[in-house]
Amino acid sequence: MEKNDLFFIREAIGEAKKASALGEVPVGCVLAIDGKIISRGHNLKESKKNALLHAEMVAIDKAIKKMKTPILPEATIYVTLEPCLMCAGAIFQTRIKRVVFGAFEPKFGVLGSILSLQNEERFNHRIEVTAGICRKEIEKMMKDFFRELRNKD
Amino acid sequence: MEKNDLFFIREAIGEAKKASALGEVPVGCVLAIDGKIISRGHNLKESKKNALLHAEMVAIDKAIKKMKTPILPEATIYVTLEPCLMCAGAIFQTRIKRVVFGAFEPKFGVLGSILSLQNEERFNHRIEVTAGICRKEIEKMMKDFFRELRNKD
Repeated sequence: MEKNDLFFIREAIGEAKKASALGEVPVGCVLAIDGKIISRGHNLKESKKNALLHAEMVAIDKAIKKMKTPILPEATIYVTLEPCLMCAGAIFQTRIKRVVFGAFEPKFGVLGSILSLQNEERFNHRIEVTAGICRKEIEKMMKDFFRELRNKD
Repeated sequence: MEKNDLFFIREAIGEAKKASALGEVPVGCVLAIDGKIISRGHNLKESKKNALLHAEMVAIDKAIKKMKTPILPEATIYVTLEPCLMCAGAIFQTRIKRVVFGAFEPKFGVLGSILSLQNEERFNHRIEVTAGICRKEIEKMMKDFFRELRNKD
């Protein structure tokens, strides 16, 4: 864990809450360079009817456009939930140096759960991973969201 | 190999040629449902200065917007080159049923080269993969592109 990790994960939780306010699975993300947030994203799959729009993809795309640079080698991405294959792939493609996430995603997560791609030596880029910051709070937020969703049915 | 695979891979090669005309690594893609092309994409990483814009991501995003549906379970994606982690992840996320590609990508490909994610039983979606259609023609197109690029330097 590094200085400010807690601050940035809390910001990502704030983004996740924007998603749940829209009826989206609460996943949120911020991207930082040199200790400053350069973009934010939250899950927009349902609102935009597009399964590509995970929080990470939204934040990475915004950061690329803002920085006017195709890759983000100086960036750290803070996300409430362990990234899936697509988002981990986008992190590798954009050369993001570090990933900090809160809760593990046992069904889809590929940075510790079903796969641990950060240890895959055949990739040409290495990422540093820190997991578990605010894990309990994030797990509770997810559980509350799904419980409420079930109660609505 | 299924009926029309050769036709659609040839269309993907046409897309790849649009990329190389822009100075992009020639990768092209078409997405088909019920034997009809619903979207096309080619690599736009350099032109748009965005490492997310692989041919597959461009074509999948277009198809989702055109079909007004978050996932594409009836679709087959035809791409000249073996997908990377991000694009394979996007294919899983959008529930595309089948992937047909031409040449293997020994450094980044995850559907047969560095990984074979179609055999990963822990994913909740299965994809069918057909590889090698027009492989030699595509390999030659890639080699010619990189030779020309080197000669420019």
